[in-house]
Amino acid sequence: MAPKRKQRYIVGVDLGGTNIVAGVMPVDGSRDHAVRSQPTRAELGADRVVDRIAGMIEEVMELTAAETGASRADFVGVGIGAPGPLDRERGIVIVTPNLGWRDFPLRDEVSSRVQLPATLDNDANCATVGEWWCGAARGGRNVVGVTIGTGIGGGLILDGTLYHGASDVAGEIGHTTIDSTGRRCKCGNYGCLEAYASGPAIAERAREALADGEASLLRELVGGDLDRITARTVYEASTRGDLVAREVVRDTARFLGTGIANLLNIFNPDVVVLAGGVTDAGDALLEPLRGEVRRRAFRPAVEACRIVPGALAGSAGVVGAVATFKMQVMGGVDGDRVA
Amino acid sequence: MAPKRKQRYIVGVDLGGTNIVAGVMPVDGSRDHAVRSQPTRAELGADRVVDRIAGMIEEVMELTAAETGASRADFVGVGIGAPGPLDRERGIVIVTPNLGWRDFPLRDEVSSRVQLPATLDNDANCATVGEWWCGAARGGRNVVGVTIGTGIGGGLILDGTLYHGASDVAGEIGHTTIDSTGRRCKCGNYGCLEAYASGPAIAERAREALADGEASLLRELVGGDLDRITARTVYEASTRGDLVAREVVRDTARFLGTGIANLLNIFNPDVVVLAGGVTDAGDALLEPLRGEVRRRAFRPAVEACRIVPGALAGSAGVVGAVATFKMQVMGGVDGDRVA
Repeated sequence: MAPKRKQRYIVGVDLGGTNIVAGVMPVDGSRDHAVRSQPTRAELGADRVVDRIAGMIEEVMELTAAETGASRADFVGVGIGAPGPLDRERGIVIVTPNLGWRDFPLRDEVSSRVQLPATLDNDANCATVGEWWCGAARGGRNVVGVTIGTGIGGGLILDGTLYHGASDVAGEIGHTTIDSTGRRCKCGNYGCLEAYASGPAIAERAREALADGEASLLRELVGGDLDRITARTVYEASTRGDLVAREVVRDTARFLGTGIANLLNIFNPDVVVLAGGVTDAGDALLEPLRGEVRRRAFRPAVEACRIVPGALAGSAGVVGAVATFKMQVMGGVDGDRVA
Repeated sequence: MAPKRKQRYIVGVDLGGTNIVAGVMPVDGSRDHAVRSQPTRAELGADRVVDRIAGMIEEVMELTAAETGASRADFVGVGIGAPGPLDRERGIVIVTPNLGWRDFPLRDEVSSRVQLPATLDNDANCATVGEWWCGAARGGRNVVGVTIGTGIGGGLILDGTLYHGASDVAGEIGHTTIDSTGRRCKCGNYGCLEAYASGPAIAERAREALADGEASLLRELVGGDLDRITARTVYEASTRGDLVAREVVRDTARFLGTGIANLLNIFNPDVVVLAGGVTDAGDALLEPLRGEVRRRAFRPAVEACRIVPGALAGSAGVVGAVATFKMQVMGGVDGDRVA
C-alpha cells in the first residue's frame, strides 16, 4: 500500500466592503474548514483592515490545525479576492470606492503579515471560480458567473480557463448597456444593467412604483418610510402577494434576462451561475428570467446553457480565492475534477 | 547552410450569400496568391454551389502552381469559412437563410470533390482570425472582430485562441440588445445592435428621416426612389455635406459605439477590429464611434484597447479560412508570429 500523502492547505480570503470572510481548504478542494466572517470596518483605514485579515488568517489556520492535525508548514499560501479594478501581477488594488483605497499593495501587505505567499484576484472572478470548482457550475467548460448585489459583477471561465482580459478588468457585466437612452448609472453611463437590477436599483424602482400613492404591503413593511425599502423588502412583499412588488420582481427578471441573453449570444456558455443577495428571490425571479432569455437569445445558445443559482452562498468567494491561489501558484483547477 | 525547406500551401474559401472568394497562402502566411471571386448564385442549389467552389479551388491552385512552381502535393488542404450556425466537428452548415441550406455537409462535399482535407468555420470567425494573423489585429492577445454588413457578426480571440463557445455559436454580437424596448430585429428580438447599425438598418433609418419630406441630397442620389437608398448612398450624401445623412451616420456611430463599449467592458480586449461594408465610411464613422466608446466604457478598458478598421478588405475571410485550417489541422497560428 502506498503511504498516504500528507494533505496541504490553502487559506482563502474574500474581502468585501461590508464583511471579510476567511476559510481554509485542502489543495484537493475536498471540503472547507473553519469559515469565519467579520465586519470589514473600512473606516478604520487600510492598515487596520489588513491587521484584521491577518488575524483571521491565523485564526482559521489554528482552527484547521486543531481539527485536522495539520502543522503550520502544511499551509502553502493565501488566495485573496477583493473588489477591483486590480493589478493582479503586482498584487495591487487600484481603486475601490467601497473601501476608499487607491493603489494599495494588498497582496504583499497580507503576505508579509502572515509570512505566506499570497495571490490577489477580483472578487467576482473568485465567486465564479468557486462555483466552478466546487459548486453549481461544476463540469462547465464555458461558465459565466453573474453576482448581483449592491453592484453587478461578472466572472468568465472560457475554454476551461479564468479569463482576465488585457488589463484585468474583463467581466464588467453590470456595466453593459441594455437601454442606450435609459437610467443613469452610478458609473456615469446610461442604461447599464446595474442601473436596473442591482439591489439598490430594485429598491429604487419599487419606490418609484409607489410614488403615485398606490396601496401596497411595501409601505407597511417599512413603517411608511420608503427609504428603508430594500430588494429583500420587495421580495418579501412579492412572496406575500403584493401586486406592486410582484411587478417590480417581474421587471427585474426581464432586465436580468435581457442582460443574460446578451451573454448567451456572445459566449454560448454551458453554464450561467447567478449569485448574490438579489438571487435570494429564488424561482420567483429565476423562472421569468429564464423565460426572457429564451425569448431573446438564439436557440442553439439557449439549448446549450443551464442558468442556475450558485450553490455555495456566502463561501463561494473564499472557495474561489483558494482556487485562484492554486491556479496561479500550483497550476490548474477545473470544474470537473481536482487537478 | 541548411537546405531550404519546400513551401507548402493552404487554400482558403470564403463563402458568402453574394460571392465566393478563394485564394491560396503558404503555411507561413507570408503572402497570398491568386485571390479570385465569383458570384455564389445560391438559387442554383447547394450542389452547384459546391461545384463552383471546387472549380475555384482547382483554379487558384493551378494559378499558384504556375506562379510558384508548387506541385499538387504541396497543397495540404482547404479551409472554408461559411455563414453559421455550423457544426464544426461534423463540418455541417446547420442553417443559412441567405443560401437556403439546412444540415448541409459542406466540408465533406468540398473535400471529396477536390480530394484534399478540409475544415469549416464561421465566416465572422475567419474574418477576425485573418485580421489577427496578417492584418490590423496583429499582435493582439484578446481580439474582438466585428463585421458590419447586411448583418453584424463577431469573432473572438481570447487569450490567444479562437473562441467558439459550447456549441459553436459564440460571437453573435449583432444580436446583443442595446435598447430592450427598441426596434424589431429580423431575429424576432427587440433592440438588437443589428437592427440599428447593419447596412439595411442604416438605409431604413435614412428613409425614416426623410419621411416628413425634409430636403436632402439623398433623394437626388436615388432619383426620388427611397427604396434604392443603401448605406453607401447615405455615406456619399454625408460626405457631400447633407445634413440628414450626416445625422444618420452620427447615430450609426452612436449605436455601434454603444455595442462596442459593451464589448470593452465584457472582454477588456487589446484590439477591436471592424470590417465589412459599413466601415467604408472611414473616420466619419470611426471617430464619433470611438468617442461614444470613451463615454460609455470603463477607462482601463478604453486605455487598453485600440479600435481599428480591418486592413485586409475583401480577403480577410480567405486569409482567416487558411488560418483556421492551419489551427485545426496543423496546430496554432497567432497574431504576432507565424507558428
